Amino acid sequence: METVGILGGTGPAGRGVAIRLASCGYDVVLGSRDAARASDIAKGIAPRGDGTVRGATNEDAAQCGLVVVATPWDSAVATVSALRAHLSGKTVISMVNALSREGRELVPLYPARGSMAAQIAFALPDSTIVGAFHHLPAAQMEDLDSGLDADVVIFSDNDPARQRVGELVSQMPGLKGVVAGSMSLASPIEAFTAVCISINIRHKAHSYVKLAGLSH
Amino acid sequence: METVGILGGTGPAGRGVAIRLASCGYDVVLGSRDAARASDIAKGIAPRGDGTVRGATNEDAAQCGLVVVATPWDSAVATVSALRAHLSGKTVISMVNALSREGRELVPLYPARGSMAAQIAFALPDSTIVGAFHHLPAAQMEDLDSGLDADVVIFSDNDPARQRVGELVSQMPGLKGVVAGSMSLASPIEAFTAVCISINIRHKAHSYVKLAGLSH
Repeated sequence: METVGILGGTGPAGRGVAIRLASCGYDVVLGSRDAARASDIAKGIAPRGDGTVRGATNEDAAQCGLVVVATPWDSAVATVSALRAHLSGKTVISMVNALSREGRELVPLYPARGSMAAQIAFALPDSTIVGAFHHLPAAQMEDLDSGLDADVVIFSDNDPARQRVGELVSQMPGLKGVVAGSMSLASPIEAFTAVCISINIRHKAHSYVKLAGLSH
Repeated sequence: METVGILGGTGPAGRGVAIRLASCGYDVVLGSRDAARASDIAKGIAPRGDGTVRGATNEDAAQCGLVVVATPWDSAVATVSALRAHLSGKTVISMVNALSREGRELVPLYPARGSMAAQIAFALPDSTIVGAFHHLPAAQMEDLDSGLDADVVIFSDNDPARQRVGELVSQMPGLKGVVAGSMSLASPIEAFTAVCISINIRHKAHSYVKLAGLSH
């Protein structure tokens, strides 16, 4: 089974993806600027199944066959730029959202190229960028008993890559991958994360997007 | 019961809102540039319940206590600007999305003020703007037997107005109003419509957004 590296994987978003990837058999490398901290955090992650989670540097994580970017939005481009050679020829999944807190809400920020995925694509011209995992509540992702049953909206300009990521996501417990289309949809998909989180703050909930009426 | 006017109400989006408003008791005035055509279309709408749907001019529709803007995005500002005096002091619901077809996808357009709701708010400084009804599949809305069970994400800078619209929406069969927050969320909510429609084109479906995990 392929290994998956998660850049900036020690935060809630990265940990949630890690445990669910490992629970369907993948060996996950949780990357961080601080490998010792990543190792500590990885030890606290208990997947169910044959997969593993280990902590390492972001550079180690970038050696994996498939790489997920889960850094804060304002360090994503710097992180991937430094790893461009390692990421060359690979599929790189961006789950990055540019958001800002304003009072009780999170509001979207629009990067110069329209989306963080587009910023990352510009920084990684030799990689194939796919967007996924944007609207998921982190605490529910981390807890395999949360009953999560979410649709994950996926986009890329590369059809085989987005289909492959869609199949990968659908293997993960509690998730179903739904290919939405091209990078033209990156901006609304990323920005809608602000709506999901604002609803959850306002309604003291951990809601997530289901696409009712879609036959899976 | 209050009357509800729908500007540009003869299109699929307006008709779907009309039949479901009338089915929970509202008298709906379907506005159009062509009142005769609006009357013909209104006669074809068969709500269940005490409400009615009649066709009229947009000016007639704008006399109602509550007004919904359902015109195409590129005529919304011109339509409401001409009716500013009639709409003064009222709550105006925008369901307008600025979208463009590109191949198999719909992609979002970003109006100068970030959203069509903001454009409409600028054109109607004496009205209170609320956004609602953006992500709904029109055919399912029009068909009361479609089994529709959708969450409608609502935004406004005016808290009483958005709460009131949320309650109105939750009265409509098949819909639940969920207040997301302020006009800062207008842009991602409107733009996400492009994602919903693109998914439906690609997957030959009529899916819609449910916020799983939200206790209603």
